[in-house]
Amino acid sequence: MTADDHTALCVLGTGLIGGSLLRAATAAGRTCWGYNRSAPGVAAARTSGFDVGDDLAAVLRRAAEADALIVVAVPMPAVNTMLDAIAEYAPGCALTDVVSVKAPVAAAVRRYGLEARYVGGHPMAGTAESGWQATDAELFRGAAWAVGVDPGTDADVWTRVTRLALDCGAVAVPVTASEHDRAVARISHLPHVLAEALAVAGARGGDLALGLAAGSFRDGTRVAGTAPDLVRAICEPNSEALLAVLDETLTALSEARESLSAQTSLADLTAAGHAARQRYETAERWEITGVFPGTAGWLEKLQEAGRAGGVVTHLAAAPAGA
Amino acid sequence: MTADDHTALCVLGTGLIGGSLLRAATAAGRTCWGYNRSAPGVAAARTSGFDVGDDLAAVLRRAAEADALIVVAVPMPAVNTMLDAIAEYAPGCALTDVVSVKAPVAAAVRRYGLEARYVGGHPMAGTAESGWQATDAELFRGAAWAVGVDPGTDADVWTRVTRLALDCGAVAVPVTASEHDRAVARISHLPHVLAEALAVAGARGGDLALGLAAGSFRDGTRVAGTAPDLVRAICEPNSEALLAVLDETLTALSEARESLSAQTSLADLTAAGHAARQRYETAERWEITGVFPGTAGWLEKLQEAGRAGGVVTHLAAAPAGA
Repeated sequence: MTADDHTALCVLGTGLIGGSLLRAATAAGRTCWGYNRSAPGVAAARTSGFDVGDDLAAVLRRAAEADALIVVAVPMPAVNTMLDAIAEYAPGCALTDVVSVKAPVAAAVRRYGLEARYVGGHPMAGTAESGWQATDAELFRGAAWAVGVDPGTDADVWTRVTRLALDCGAVAVPVTASEHDRAVARISHLPHVLAEALAVAGARGGDLALGLAAGSFRDGTRVAGTAPDLVRAICEPNSEALLAVLDETLTALSEARESLSAQTSLADLTAAGHAARQRYETAERWEITGVFPGTAGWLEKLQEAGRAGGVVTHLAAAPAGA
Repeated sequence: MTADDHTALCVLGTGLIGGSLLRAATAAGRTCWGYNRSAPGVAAARTSGFDVGDDLAAVLRRAAEADALIVVAVPMPAVNTMLDAIAEYAPGCALTDVVSVKAPVAAAVRRYGLEARYVGGHPMAGTAESGWQATDAELFRGAAWAVGVDPGTDADVWTRVTRLALDCGAVAVPVTASEHDRAVARISHLPHVLAEALAVAGARGGDLALGLAAGSFRDGTRVAGTAPDLVRAICEPNSEALLAVLDETLTALSEARESLSAQTSLADLTAAGHAARQRYETAERWEITGVFPGTAGWLEKLQEAGRAGGVVTHLAAAPAGA
């Protein structure tokens, strides 16, 4: 892969993810600035020594002048507002995002005519907390960071986005928008839905049940501590993929229910669940090598490697003639 | 509550819970010995310096001679074997257990004619690991330990069992067998079922989905790492209560599915789930005082207090005339 100079970074939204990104990229030696719409959010970031303002036009004009990589780091409902301003003030900049779904963001990017310089991203990191107070330069250390490889992806922008992920200590997982959205429905959005349902079932048992609750309930409901609006902003834009996996899970649970009722047995569910968890625990990342952005078939090779669990851990210059 | 001398302790089964109990009670200064059916299990405990044998009759005769409190610490499928031997060799001993369901154990105890000196127990602690290697004297520190308060409970045995829980660093939660079983269906057995289903859904997404999985999936599937036979031994004996809460949860998930499908909204589920998790996070134990075992109405008072989140944290002598 081609090496690329570190570039300036403009982060729109300085909540948990955007703010942590600002911290991590700054710590990696990059020139970074950001935007936040709220005065307290701006003040909090500035108190920590970061260059954050609330004048979106000014922040974006600076990005255009510096040829910065722009990162949209706001929840899905606020994405259009950001893209509208980008289209006006910095339409030529390389553009990425850290929103939890990719196809809806890509569709919005197309509506604003920004698709040529856009590569979607999604760092798989977070906590149940939110806001600048929760930001952490180490949040992305060791995390998987999905980086888009849809047909037509610009090699230069792809390299810049991947460089950002690596600078933040993450590994890059190449994935198309639709495959990403189906995958995160399984491993992020369904966990949120089940955690909410489990919390409700526990609380219906009253003080006695909650007083007896230990590790399995605590861990199983942890992400139900996330603000409801944030959970909705994460899950609802991915409703199609989430509905599919929710239906699959309702079927699996109904089958387990029938087995428990008819044979007093959870044999099938526990065997399958344990095997699945073992597969998760023993899964190992492997490094994708020998694929150089912009060379023949690079996107298809990265798509295939990503599907098989491969990750990009460094960017190397293409050999002569590649 | 009446103070009681520390008593000798005989633990049947030295897996994660029984072995940790042996360690904790020994650390508290009590005379303890145990039984394990497997030679490697016995050897492991002995290597750690504990008095564990594989001659069940001898272990129980010693309990009868020492007026020890006997603790049944085997999974539900092995309980009858233990009770059969207790009925033969130590029928007059105070008897408790640490099995994850209470009504089925109580029914078995009645079948062996041991109910007069039995008070059920259940420490709400554990890990996904098992066996002597996983034992920990601190496993019960701060945990809730359910102690039976069904009609007819013997005050002396109740005090002995509660004393054991407190000696291990736990707090005692007074609860009837049926209320216990309904509560743990919600906060222990349902979490296991949902964790298994979530693990299956994630693994169906293949290497890509598992590679993108982060905290919400990791925590939501943690207990699916428990050995399937152990999960079955925990959940299946409580099938009636588990089926009821599983049906309730299937209904809640189906309603969320309909809302997501029709209105692209998870508003109701996320609001209810977040409120439930907040209730769990902010629930505070309160100390039950002024109830003395054996005095008028003590069981009813403890039942009521347990339902309202009360716990016993120390045993005090009854005042004169109580």
